[in-house]
Amino acid sequence: MAGRSHGIHAEPTTFGFKAAGWYAELARDARRLERARETVSVGSISGAVGTHANVSAEVERHVLDDLGLGIDPAPTQVVSRDRHAELLTSLAILGGTLERIAIEIRHLQRTEVGEAFEPFGSGQQGSSAMPHKRNPILAERVSGMARLLRADALVGLENMALWHERDISHSSAERFVFERALGVAAYATRATADILDGLEVDADRMRANLDELGGMVYSEALLLGMIARGADRQVAYRLVQGAAKRAWAGETDFRSALAEDPGIAEWLSADEIEAAMSLEHHLAGIGVTYRALELDESS
Amino acid sequence: MAGRSHGIHAEPTTFGFKAAGWYAELARDARRLERARETVSVGSISGAVGTHANVSAEVERHVLDDLGLGIDPAPTQVVSRDRHAELLTSLAILGGTLERIAIEIRHLQRTEVGEAFEPFGSGQQGSSAMPHKRNPILAERVSGMARLLRADALVGLENMALWHERDISHSSAERFVFERALGVAAYATRATADILDGLEVDADRMRANLDELGGMVYSEALLLGMIARGADRQVAYRLVQGAAKRAWAGETDFRSALAEDPGIAEWLSADEIEAAMSLEHHLAGIGVTYRALELDESS
Amino acid sequence: MAGRSHGIHAEPTTFGFKAAGWYAELARDARRLERARETVSVGSISGAVGTHANVSAEVERHVLDDLGLGIDPAPTQVVSRDRHAELLTSLAILGGTLERIAIEIRHLQRTEVGEAFEPFGSGQQGSSAMPHKRNPILAERVSGMARLLRADALVGLENMALWHERDISHSSAERFVFERALGVAAYATRATADILDGLEVDADRMRANLDELGGMVYSEALLLGMIARGADRQVAYRLVQGAAKRAWAGETDFRSALAEDPGIAEWLSADEIEAAMSLEHHLAGIGVTYRALELDESS
Amino acid sequence: MAGRSHGIHAEPTTFGFKAAGWYAELARDARRLERARETVSVGSISGAVGTHANVSAEVERHVLDDLGLGIDPAPTQVVSRDRHAELLTSLAILGGTLERIAIEIRHLQRTEVGEAFEPFGSGQQGSSAMPHKRNPILAERVSGMARLLRADALVGLENMALWHERDISHSSAERFVFERALGVAAYATRATADILDGLEVDADRMRANLDELGGMVYSEALLLGMIARGADRQVAYRLVQGAAKRAWAGETDFRSALAEDPGIAEWLSADEIEAAMSLEHHLAGIGVTYRALELDESS
Repeated sequence: MAGRSHGIHAEPTTFGFKAAGWYAELARDARRLERARETVSVGSISGAVGTHANVSAEVERHVLDDLGLGIDPAPTQVVSRDRHAELLTSLAILGGTLERIAIEIRHLQRTEVGEAFEPFGSGQQGSSAMPHKRNPILAERVSGMARLLRADALVGLENMALWHERDISHSSAERFVFERALGVAAYATRATADILDGLEVDADRMRANLDELGGMVYSEALLLGMIARGADRQVAYRLVQGAAKRAWAGETDFRSALAEDPGIAEWLSADEIEAAMSLEHHLAGIGVTYRALELDESS
Repeated sequence: MAGRSHGIHAEPTTFGFKAAGWYAELARDARRLERARETVSVGSISGAVGTHANVSAEVERHVLDDLGLGIDPAPTQVVSRDRHAELLTSLAILGGTLERIAIEIRHLQRTEVGEAFEPFGSGQQGSSAMPHKRNPILAERVSGMARLLRADALVGLENMALWHERDISHSSAERFVFERALGVAAYATRATADILDGLEVDADRMRANLDELGGMVYSEALLLGMIARGADRQVAYRLVQGAAKRAWAGETDFRSALAEDPGIAEWLSADEIEAAMSLEHHLAGIGVTYRALELDESS
Repeated sequence: MAGRSHGIHAEPTTFGFKAAGWYAELARDARRLERARETVSVGSISGAVGTHANVSAEVERHVLDDLGLGIDPAPTQVVSRDRHAELLTSLAILGGTLERIAIEIRHLQRTEVGEAFEPFGSGQQGSSAMPHKRNPILAERVSGMARLLRADALVGLENMALWHERDISHSSAERFVFERALGVAAYATRATADILDGLEVDADRMRANLDELGGMVYSEALLLGMIARGADRQVAYRLVQGAAKRAWAGETDFRSALAEDPGIAEWLSADEIEAAMSLEHHLAGIGVTYRALELDESS
Repeated sequence: MAGRSHGIHAEPTTFGFKAAGWYAELARDARRLERARETVSVGSISGAVGTHANVSAEVERHVLDDLGLGIDPAPTQVVSRDRHAELLTSLAILGGTLERIAIEIRHLQRTEVGEAFEPFGSGQQGSSAMPHKRNPILAERVSGMARLLRADALVGLENMALWHERDISHSSAERFVFERALGVAAYATRATADILDGLEVDADRMRANLDELGGMVYSEALLLGMIARGADRQVAYRLVQGAAKRAWAGETDFRSALAEDPGIAEWLSADEIEAAMSLEHHLAGIGVTYRALELDESS
């Protein structure tokens, strides 16, 4: 399928390669959240200012052990709030990852692209007004949820600097953000899993879209091929760009524009042009990523 | 010195105990930042959509090794932006820690408290208009810097969800936030170090403030002492609260109010009251924290 | 051109109608910014705590008149910071408007849509690696700038609650955000103006895309037509949806699917179907908006 | 009472003068909210892409009139989201104002200041552990609510840039933020009203605190008095600062330090010193603010 930068076809990629990027990022999210869970899984039973004046360390340890919690070694009246800020910012980063996936699906589902579709139950109704529509509403909701998680993280960061041994500005706000952030993150994660589990992929459309620019997605390979043969980079760039411009302008198609250009022919034969414009060449390197992630390339 | 919750004297603490809390939180910040540095210390030389189509993994490894960077195993045209979000949110959490310290100093320096003062060079002028003033301007600046770090973190979080294999919405914003966040965090860290290095502590004032409420800071110990002797919690609470109210109202001082209350005398002798109202009793437990942090208690 | 909700073709609209929406929103932004300019255009020369103790109201009026500023009637040592928060949030809302325009252009320029293109100087080079590319980099930058404006607004909001008659936490942060927010807003406004001034619109492609779904964009008109003739809403919905599904599935095109459906024929004749599927019918109402905005419809 | 900048006594002010500042800021909040209410009080019944294709302007006007709403002149499928961003940012600015008041009360209530106290019902229990405590918990909650309002404003700003004629990323988030922001703003407003209605002010303590520095709060008046008599500003500054330093150091009190300083005596007589150090002189100018706000100075 077409890889796109700036929304413009760049070079070929595969849908699996995209997903490998999500997989790697989600694995980092999982590690961040595991660490954050450990960071917040402490309690404190150490008295009004944290000094164990009227409660012993033994009592604290006994109760927190029972609760499966560690001990905050240097509390005030409350456990330090950097811990909760780490949890809330880690959830916001997870939100950003899920939003990245959601925005990809929303783009792929748009009418003119049509490469992938979030699941649409057979009994599900789309637009209430327009019977033909099938909308990526789950993915859009995930985008909205990411905004809520960013907002909650902000509250967590503002909650850190309490007055002296604590005030309750933080706890009044935490009653809102802890529950919401965890609930919203869980919802957005499940929604994303549902989207990916039930995703309908249109491989034919992917291939058709990739070919839409008549091979321009191979322009860098052409450029590098000419340079490898000794062409000056700026000269080669202008030659390939010129062929692309003539194709954009509708005067000809890109392959013909290349074939007819004597400047290009100086450096590359028709066979060499065709070899540079091959999907196989362009996808030969993706195994680097699969192997680095210890993923099965055939998956 | 007085430990304070809600800005109100609660129970005794020590300045060293407060600092131990900062030390523990800064140690967590250091770990978060070390992890974040590792997370962002990767590069990618993998082509226009990350597929190593026109550049080999060997070239990438060679160059990134030379730069002392790891390899992002699953990039797009760019390294994944969750990495930078982790750095920026970790810096924002550090900002929250520094703000916590700064707000403590600002409180301790206020005229009515007067327990600690950020350094004031002998040649330094305070207020331009009011010759008597010495202001905690460094600590106030640290508070301001924490706001900037929160704002930068927000940009980092919004920068994660790029379109397809990248757009440049993130990089145009990163030109502003990377440099600023790192510079501001470094400044705020140094300013906080300078404040703490040169801090003037007025131990006599700390002690005088602690005694300001005439021993009310020991009210919980009295309450627990009565309960230990068999008093009903609600009854004991109301008795101690009553003595405190009479003292607040200026009718008497707290110690006299306690001594004169027959309800309290039912449970505690004069000697037992005095034992409950002892600084030694209240600070006996702080070693728990020093030992947990492997700090020298005498420091 | 196609109007799109959820990224899916919905009903026809026109590019001018989209721009009318931007025009109306920008007019609201202009009013918000004019009010904010008035709100912040005050000064205060009223002394260390705002009481005019050592400076007279006459001196204040004289100097501020000279500077073209109004007087803050109830200052502390400084002008109230709600004023600056209003400016910074108004700039952030402007940023959201500009981002709305920018995202529209980025969508329209994407390879598969190709309906509009931000200006590309004849001497400008696109992608450094891929000679065929022409990227909406200005619009992407505007998206990034909107993030910075949101971040600056946040700092402005946090800067409001100063301690007593002021501390300098706000001013240390304002040194960063005032200059940046005003500069970034000016840049993003000019960039958007440049994009719109030099925008290349491909009207043929707009029309071709609109027809891509074979008339499904008229599905609501068909639905309403059947209902007007007495059809049950749910029944009519399922009939039109059924035709759309057969067309999506590639079994037939949408017009044929409609023509061949006896359920639909019960309510609408072939001529009535064609009348419902007319661009003229669908654009007849846009004058409502032009007249409400006092815009020349032919513009 | 003492006016304070940087938490340090600066010059005298009055509690009414502080409240006048809140009054003026709240009046601006009221205007911002009235405008925002007007801005959001519009609806749209204009069809799937806002073009009035299948619904007439007459129907729209009839229904919206009935609902008491205006008409959005240039909608998409939905009303433009700059309107809601204006409401949410206006609520966040109100939150900042309420937080400013709340932080003032929290400062005034702290043990060492003791100048004002939020209401404490006769049946209300303070700290559950410490019977002597009376905490400003309402004001602290208002501080927490201000953070939630900032977070909600952020979501409102991110919700502006929808895709084409709308996606539902905004509405999924709006289900959370509209209700919460309005509810939280109402709660924080009522809580602040309750605090101010039932506020207990300790005027004696205010006066005692003002005198705590032995008249240093009049240092600027002394400085200006010497300058008026011809003293060099730097010289005069150092003389007054020197007297203040000797008083801070506990060698003497400020008035004696001034009286004993021959450098000061060169410019000001004992009577002139006393005249500069007068509360009446320092409060003579506050009427400027009361008159500007059309408030009764005696209130």
